[in-house]
Amino acid sequence: MLRTSIAAIPPGAVDLTGEAVRRRRALQRAATGVLERAGYEELIPPTFEYEDIFLRAAGPGIAERLLRFPDRDGRILALRYDFTATVARVAATTFAEAPRPLRLCYSGKVYRQEPERGGRPRQTLQVGAELFGQDGLAADLEIVQLTLALMREAGLQDFQINLGHVGVLAAGLAALPEPLRTETRRWIDRKDRGNLTRALAGAADDTRALATLSFVIGRRDALEDAARSAPKASLPGLEHLLALDSALAPSERAHLVYDLGEVRGLDYYTGIHFELFDDLMGRFGRPMPAVGVSLDLDTIAEVVA
Amino acid sequence: MLRTSIAAIPPGAVDLTGEAVRRRRALQRAATGVLERAGYEELIPPTFEYEDIFLRAAGPGIAERLLRFPDRDGRILALRYDFTATVARVAATTFAEAPRPLRLCYSGKVYRQEPERGGRPRQTLQVGAELFGQDGLAADLEIVQLTLALMREAGLQDFQINLGHVGVLAAGLAALPEPLRTETRRWIDRKDRGNLTRALAGAADDTRALATLSFVIGRRDALEDAARSAPKASLPGLEHLLALDSALAPSERAHLVYDLGEVRGLDYYTGIHFELFDDLMGRFGRPMPAVGVSLDLDTIAEVVA
Repeated sequence: MLRTSIAAIPPGAVDLTGEAVRRRRALQRAATGVLERAGYEELIPPTFEYEDIFLRAAGPGIAERLLRFPDRDGRILALRYDFTATVARVAATTFAEAPRPLRLCYSGKVYRQEPERGGRPRQTLQVGAELFGQDGLAADLEIVQLTLALMREAGLQDFQINLGHVGVLAAGLAALPEPLRTETRRWIDRKDRGNLTRALAGAADDTRALATLSFVIGRRDALEDAARSAPKASLPGLEHLLALDSALAPSERAHLVYDLGEVRGLDYYTGIHFELFDDLMGRFGRPMPAVGVSLDLDTIAEVVA
Repeated sequence: MLRTSIAAIPPGAVDLTGEAVRRRRALQRAATGVLERAGYEELIPPTFEYEDIFLRAAGPGIAERLLRFPDRDGRILALRYDFTATVARVAATTFAEAPRPLRLCYSGKVYRQEPERGGRPRQTLQVGAELFGQDGLAADLEIVQLTLALMREAGLQDFQINLGHVGVLAAGLAALPEPLRTETRRWIDRKDRGNLTRALAGAADDTRALATLSFVIGRRDALEDAARSAPKASLPGLEHLLALDSALAPSERAHLVYDLGEVRGLDYYTGIHFELFDDLMGRFGRPMPAVGVSLDLDTIAEVVA
């Protein structure tokens, strides 16, 4: 009975040992080296903060995912839900007067309840970077190239980054009344073409284009095809992606696939998360553009195994 | 008002940036390299566990220092109070059947409420190692030499390690009735010679020797002097320290000072904590000797600044 109780660790917790540790530490070292050489300054933030910081950055929707506890004064603390919130807070305060662009990076664990997995708190090791105060193509290009360097340094050769642009679908989505807008986003997120087409059946031409555009996935030629039939409001987003594509070297371009169905920001690859924030820094009282990337080392460690 | 609230982080929390981060990462890398080359296997344990793990290892006295919160089932979790408890748990479970001696190491933060500082939770970055299943001189020598290597690799030249041995005072202390025993320990801990001498005034000769022995601090000759007048029960401890001293190279010995007043285990230097556990592993159902060292990188980073 004693033995059973000794062995017990909380649901979702894991003791990493041996090869699992070596692989993560190697990835962490490699990634930190890439970020340092690219001029990103590392932060070591506290492991927990007032919950408000995380809610302010990620929105009230994440409240049930926070691991919370009261401090001695009864204020609510939360374990780090993501680094983005903390890095944005530091950029808006400690680095408020620092020259722009501002490059910050981090490495450590994030902690999330997972209601869909019975509320088991997950502890995930991440490395990532945020670029503040630089706008447009230059910022996106820097983060995409940084991501490619991180993947190469991690020892990955054969990988693909799916890249979208919120602007392509944003105008069409904004024109929809609620609850149709939320429903449309959901079908786009789920890549459910049937329900999406049905939901938009009665909408205007430009809006119905969402059903087609959100399924465009491919290389440069897919973007060029889409641009020929896309509504005007979608063109700046498509042109942004085309300009990004032109700016990349062939060896970089080979890893990129454009996926216009990504409406949660520039986004996505197992283990990689891109973030483009229009108003993140505004929420911390210092409006400025912010683009970031984070790597989930637990996922990538499995891939390179 | 918004700005004030944005800047707020919980009492005791710190955002480390710039040189403070670079120094800690360099120390962490150097220490991890030393430990790896010495055959210590790194663990990445969960950041929080059932509070029982920490209480079992460090005793109920630390309860008020734990940062606690309930899990979804109402069981009480605590942020990592120390690595020792977790490493002992892993040694007793995952590594229960592994060959001895077993060498494990770690690197990360520990979290402690500090009642004496108004309950501000402190987050401290540590690196350390535990040697299990090896007894006596060989184990102590390995940990002392490992510590010297860690300090050298950290870039410290001019440092001193104060080393005691619980056995020297243990027999005398054990012979005292309570509450005199607790009182005596307190005066020894506080190095309060006046109160110590008064408390022991009526005791037997061997016990009164505690008042003298606990103030012995010095090199080999101090140990030899002490051995000449020490009660029989103290001799094995003194001989252990003399044997350790003989086993060290002159360049190693130069950093060591023997301090018999250390009754909390092999102990002590700002930023270094030695631990010798007689029954740590017994508390996890797997009795075996355990010796460890942990470095407080926040303290050492200030020293090497």
